[in-house]
Amino acid sequence: MTTDDARLTPSPHPPSRGTLYGVGLGPGDPDLMTLRAARLISDATVVAYPTLAGCESFARSIAADLIGQDVHEIVMDVPMTVERAPAQHAYDKGAAEIAAALEAGTDVVCLCEGDPFFYGSFMYIFARLSETYDVEVVPGVTSVTACAARTGMPLAARNERLTILPGPLPAAELQARIDGAESVVVMKVGRHLSKIREVVAGLGLLNAAVYVERATLSEERVLPLADAPDPAPYFSMILITKGADPWL
Amino acid sequence: MTTDDARLTPSPHPPSRGTLYGVGLGPGDPDLMTLRAARLISDATVVAYPTLAGCESFARSIAADLIGQDVHEIVMDVPMTVERAPAQHAYDKGAAEIAAALEAGTDVVCLCEGDPFFYGSFMYIFARLSETYDVEVVPGVTSVTACAARTGMPLAARNERLTILPGPLPAAELQARIDGAESVVVMKVGRHLSKIREVVAGLGLLNAAVYVERATLSEERVLPLADAPDPAPYFSMILITKGADPWL
Repeated sequence: MTTDDARLTPSPHPPSRGTLYGVGLGPGDPDLMTLRAARLISDATVVAYPTLAGCESFARSIAADLIGQDVHEIVMDVPMTVERAPAQHAYDKGAAEIAAALEAGTDVVCLCEGDPFFYGSFMYIFARLSETYDVEVVPGVTSVTACAARTGMPLAARNERLTILPGPLPAAELQARIDGAESVVVMKVGRHLSKIREVVAGLGLLNAAVYVERATLSEERVLPLADAPDPAPYFSMILITKGADPWL
Repeated sequence: MTTDDARLTPSPHPPSRGTLYGVGLGPGDPDLMTLRAARLISDATVVAYPTLAGCESFARSIAADLIGQDVHEIVMDVPMTVERAPAQHAYDKGAAEIAAALEAGTDVVCLCEGDPFFYGSFMYIFARLSETYDVEVVPGVTSVTACAARTGMPLAARNERLTILPGPLPAAELQARIDGAESVVVMKVGRHLSKIREVVAGLGLLNAAVYVERATLSEERVLPLADAPDPAPYFSMILITKGADPWL
């Protein structure tokens, strides 16, 4: 039942609330969106997405060709501040706008780069709305496996351990964690590149480490970590694989 | 250049070799295939996939509706043995059949459940053929983010560490690794369930652990780890999240 119908003819049953879809869009190439994501976006009448400090939304850019002209767009502009309160306020405001659409019986498609639950901001919206509304999370291809695909470096096999680390961690912690896994992915490299590179070199792993920037996009760059730019852009990552012989 | 054509008619321009596509199919629901995967499979004239000890291929079942009737299927039957040699032999044989098709100028689409480079067998084919032939790896949604989506448990945010561990690891190692990350995914649970559950309980994390079986398929089951079946089926996993407050 839709609210539109309810407006036309009085109904004994109150109109249903809409469903919130948290939709993973994959690493950047629109072709790496799932069939389900593409269908939900094409059918959407309301989409929501974050922007960072007024910049263009990467998530929206991935989905752009599928968003209809008359679609209502809820933009959550998240400021880049050290304190968390301003960002929380942006998510509070976005969640309230999404809730208003859901209350009106409209489904809302929230656009998420990569996967909604993998270092994404959708979890903040999910925390605010999932107890009150139906929420479906549609998983997406993460930048981790996209980078592995683009470098030709298998991530993990058999009984290997894979650790995913954010670049801002302290050097000592990075060192201990990189030492203890067969495969390591370091996310959010950015201005932490030189610190990470020193740690990797100190462990004698520079030859096993590859730097990937903007994987699957036309501006993609794949370089040995030794040659990576410093600082690196935000959408960059380092893969380190020291797994067993892939022939066996 | 294809040897077959070269033998038939000398040509001033040797025909091109085919390209091998290692295509991730996602966790099981065919709707979670990427647009690129769906297009490559629909257009394929040769597909290849592994089967385990003569059982039906899970990868093929995900793609079944897209595989045309006249498509040539290269089946790699991988025996389940402790020694690696029989499996290596199966990949040698499969790689040779794939190479013959590539030499004849035909593209080959290798079907991979989940993502080709994430605990998948495609890496064995990749190792055998990538130095001689053009190979494109198409990343897919992994069971890891699919399970997170189905349980409503965000995997990682901000500076949290995510560790992925295979269930067959020794208890002491599982314990140390689970203790050292905010989020942990244990793959390949199967007959290791009781060992893993004891480790998780010993760390006081039983309430933070969820068991997921056959995520995104109609037979999917999501249970508290305390209630998980023992032994578990092969396609099952345990998620443990002890991250920060998702509201913040």
